[in-house]
Parts: sequence; C-alpha cells; structure tokens
Amino acid sequence: MDGVAGTGIPLRSILEHGSHGLGTFRGMRGELIAFDGEVWQMKHDGSVRRADVSGADGEDYSPFAMVTDFRAEHSGTATLSEKGGVEGVLAALAPDAHNTHIAFRLDGAFKRIRVRTAQGQCYEGEGLKDVASRQVEVTLPASRGTVVGFRSPQFLQGVVVAGVHMHYIDDARTAGGHVLALESDGEVKVQVAELWRTVMDLPRGDKAFNEAPLALNDGGIKAVEG
Amino acid sequence: MDGVAGTGIPLRSILEHGSHGLGTFRGMRGELIAFDGEVWQMKHDGSVRRADVSGADGEDYSPFAMVTDFRAEHSGTATLSEKGGVEGVLAALAPDAHNTHIAFRLDGAFKRIRVRTAQGQCYEGEGLKDVASRQVEVTLPASRGTVVGFRSPQFLQGVVVAGVHMHYIDDARTAGGHVLALESDGEVKVQVAELWRTVMDLPRGDKAFNEAPLALNDGGIKAVEG
Repeated sequence: MDGVAGTGIPLRSILEHGSHGLGTFRGMRGELIAFDGEVWQMKHDGSVRRADVSGADGEDYSPFAMVTDFRAEHSGTATLSEKGGVEGVLAALAPDAHNTHIAFRLDGAFKRIRVRTAQGQCYEGEGLKDVASRQVEVTLPASRGTVVGFRSPQFLQGVVVAGVHMHYIDDARTAGGHVLALESDGEVKVQVAELWRTVMDLPRGDKAFNEAPLALNDGGIKAVEG
Repeated sequence: MDGVAGTGIPLRSILEHGSHGLGTFRGMRGELIAFDGEVWQMKHDGSVRRADVSGADGEDYSPFAMVTDFRAEHSGTATLSEKGGVEGVLAALAPDAHNTHIAFRLDGAFKRIRVRTAQGQCYEGEGLKDVASRQVEVTLPASRGTVVGFRSPQFLQGVVVAGVHMHYIDDARTAGGHVLALESDGEVKVQVAELWRTVMDLPRGDKAFNEAPLALNDGGIKAVEG
C-alpha cells in the first residue's frame, strides 16, 4: 500500500480478526506488535507506548496491519544464529504450508537483535522508500522478549511482504521494532500456526487510498523490508 | 495459481461465500459462471452443463473461483461497442472503488460476443500458458444473455487477474465462455457492487499445491487472460 498511510482502519476493527500480529500506525509512525491481548507502538525515538484500541475518538488507526487469532499447531525450540535461520525452522515445523501464510511466535533470550523503526511520513502520500530512508536502526542490548511474525508465500508479494516479516518487543516493554537481524541466546521457544484463509479489508471512503496509483512494486518492497 | 489445478476446493465450500462469480474446474476443464443460484460449466466442445454442487462424491471442484454474495449498489444501462468499454462504464458507476474489487453483471442482447473455453490440462501441473495454447475460441451468434465479471485492482495481479475478467452465458444456457470481445445490441443493464473485504481460501492438504513453485507472473497472466 505504498505511500497510502494517512488514514487506515481503526485498530479495534482490525483486532476483530485476532490479536496476534504486526503492522504500522497512521502516517507510518512506528511499528506495531500485538500478542496476548496487548498492542504496542514502538517509535523511532526509542519510546514504547500501549496502543489505544478504546474505540474513542483518539483511537489509533493502521494503514497496514496483519493479524490472526493465533492458535499454535506446531511448536518446538530452536537456536538461531541469524535472521535467515527462521525460515528453515518454520519450514521444518510446517512442511505442508509452503504456499500459504504461517503465523509464528518466538519467546526467549536474545544475545543480539537489530531493529528498525519508521519515523513516519513527512507528507501525506510519501512513499515507503523515502520513509525508509529516514528509519532509525539500532542494535538492542541482550534481552528477553517476544518476536511476532508471518512467513508469507512468494505469490503474495505486493499484497503483503513475501517471506519472513517479524517485529520484536522485550519483556520489559521498553524497546523493539521491525527485526533486521537476530541471534538467540540459547534455545528459544517457537510456535507456529498455518493460515489457509486470508481476509483482506481495504479502507472504504478514503480519498487518498482511492486515488493512489497502487501497482506491483516487487523491487521496492525487497529494498526496504529486508 | 499457475498450473496447480489438479484438485482445488469443493464447489459447495466456495459457494458459501456467495453465488455470483466465475472460475474454472478441476484440471482447468472449461469455464465456470455462477449467478441467481445456478452454476454452469461451459466446455471446449461447446457443451454446457449444470455444475454438481450436491456435496456428494461426484461433486465438482474448482482450483480457482472468485465469488461474492452479489448485491447491486449501483446500476445503469450502457451501449458497448467493445470489451474495453466495460472498464469506463464501471469506473463511472463506482468512482470511489479504484483500488478495490468491483463485481458486476451485464444483462441484455449482444450482437457479437467472442469467447474462449479451456480444454483442460494434458497432465497434472501443466501451466496456464500451455493450457491456453489449446483453448477454443469462437464468436457466438447474436444472443441474449448474462455476463458475470470482476474488475480487480492492479496491485492484486497474480492473486487474481487485474483489470476486467468476465464470463458469459446465453439465456438458453447453450453457449458461453471467458469473454474475449463483445458488442452489445443496444443498451444492456449494468449492475455493480463494490467489494471492500476479500476472503482467500487456499487448498489445504493438497500436495501438488504445496510443492508448486508459485511466484508472481505478471507477463504470463497478461498474455493468456487478455
């Protein structure tokens, strides 16, 4: 949904589909992580706040979020030396889900976890690539925490981010973001669910969304969501 | 879902989402059209049969179908001199739905309507391009009938066919197929619905689907679905 981030859908409506997921906020201000009934916003200044899902006027909106009613079907443990290792762990736990979405969760200690947080759009309609050029990247100190992620099939690139897409937050709820790199400190718990039904809601009555020249942008997504 | 057409999902399950739509059958044998509670298969030999949605063993399966519970929100009439004119008529009736699916229906007399019907795969996994090389194309004699179609946004190319995709059947239920060209005989009735929620079900437990190297194939889709 390149650049179309001015409004979006109320978080409360999104959470009707489930409370395990990730996304961003209106204006691409920060990263969203949701699990265990909690929704957090991790901002570029390093601050973390609980998102507002009250349904009141001040409620948070999301131009892009992906959530599921997470029920682990497979679980195990894994020692991860790099982000790329996650894909193999998921494929081993869910070998029949190559061409569908997988939702997953990692819990444990991390020696090293590098995250980025989006600072937000400077103007309405600013594209993902330009927003990403101002993103803040930081390597967090060793911590315990939770990774929430999705592994999406290649043929859905453009609708979602194909491959592994994950957000992290520490147990203290003081730091996190979109995961760029990770290394576990020993074994972490891995839980996986296969998702055979996908529901996509688009923002109705949103002038900017209606007028945006949205098209496939495979290269652009790979460049900024790596 | 290039080439993955050996099994699919039972029609009965698909029709739970609505009874207005189009698609194909197991093995890409012919074209599917559904409306007003009826589902028809239009085959390459020119025959037309009512699809089996009984739920019994012999029931038809579809590897790809797109359906909706159609409730017209906008309607009008239009004289169409070519297939390309449909897009403008839809945009005029639903100007705020540029980036979402539109479902539509045309009813009336057609002076000229050219259709193709897929003959089917020669072997399991045969790709769309090769199947299309054996498709039967025919210009039907003037008739009265119904066109069922969807106009899908460009960013969903690969998940569905971006742009206008429509199937036709005559009132006598003797001929029809995937529409390649059309010309109305005077005004036809046009009904349109905007679709802001999309549900995608993928075939679970289907080995061929799981193992297929599905990826974006923009050029391939444009070449065979024009």
